[in-house]
Amino acid sequence: MTDVTSKVAEQIEFLRGLRQIRQLKPEPIPADALRDILEVARWTGSARNIQPWELIVIHDRATLQKLGTIPDGRGPHLVNAGAGIALVMSGDLEHPDFDTYDEGRLSERIMLAAEAHELGSAIGWFKGGASDEAKRILGVPSVRLLRTIMSIGVVDAEGYDKRQRPAQPRKSLADIVHQERW
Amino acid sequence: MTDVTSKVAEQIEFLRGLRQIRQLKPEPIPADALRDILEVARWTGSARNIQPWELIVIHDRATLQKLGTIPDGRGPHLVNAGAGIALVMSGDLEHPDFDTYDEGRLSERIMLAAEAHELGSAIGWFKGGASDEAKRILGVPSVRLLRTIMSIGVVDAEGYDKRQRPAQPRKSLADIVHQERW
Repeated sequence: MTDVTSKVAEQIEFLRGLRQIRQLKPEPIPADALRDILEVARWTGSARNIQPWELIVIHDRATLQKLGTIPDGRGPHLVNAGAGIALVMSGDLEHPDFDTYDEGRLSERIMLAAEAHELGSAIGWFKGGASDEAKRILGVPSVRLLRTIMSIGVVDAEGYDKRQRPAQPRKSLADIVHQERW
Repeated sequence: MTDVTSKVAEQIEFLRGLRQIRQLKPEPIPADALRDILEVARWTGSARNIQPWELIVIHDRATLQKLGTIPDGRGPHLVNAGAGIALVMSGDLEHPDFDTYDEGRLSERIMLAAEAHELGSAIGWFKGGASDEAKRILGVPSVRLLRTIMSIGVVDAEGYDKRQRPAQPRKSLADIVHQERW
């Protein structure tokens, strides 16, 4: 019983403790970690089980550098990532909410799988012209949606400790939870 | 080293193994499980850390019944859920993708936290008139976005075993992963 209880507590703490980590070291990430991350990504649930995603895994430092420095792009952490993972969504204009919602689910799982391997991860967002430029760099067809490119990497603990922290990292439960109705 | 390796493997398997479970028993869920689920939800990351969500926890069987039987609603599993959790998003029309992406991240974490407690969970979607009706039932202001209502509950193992399964539950890695570029 104690073992079961502690396993539950450990998994909840694992989930609760996930943070985005943008301070990464430009070192390779272990192949088994990357394999696990992709496997967890692959099994993500999606609306109608369409699995509206393809992933581009990027190790090339020059490409990561280009992606991380796109004007108006929001992924400067890619410059020092061990690997980038571009989430190329279907671009289905009839169901844009499927793409976006499933992209969120997929991102969360990739971050958690990285965390399981004690790697850091961060979400880069590319919209408008920045997305077009990212597509050009990666050769992604213009009809697809490319908005999220994730960084995975070895944590730069010193840089992470020095980061700016918000005064209130999260709202309290009392602020966000209603019972039975609004 | 073995302990660390097995812990990583356990967490990856936990993530990889998550499935939506719509076959639930109309039994109460433990208070500590619900508390953990809400705590994990609360710590979900969001675009610009806006945390654009409020949650309504629903135990009342009559309300769950009403929500689960809304015409054109997509949450029949709510009828037998131990609890429902409505994800009320900001409704910010300038950044609808923030709401939707963060809603996806939040949903995934709620499902995983339920899984940690060996509870089943499922996503119900309500759009158009079905969303309006869900808002009316729960008293949610019309300017908010209410699309996702999740079921949490004790798994009906027999019903789950008899479910229809897709021929190919997920695409293979070869089908979805590109190296370096598209």
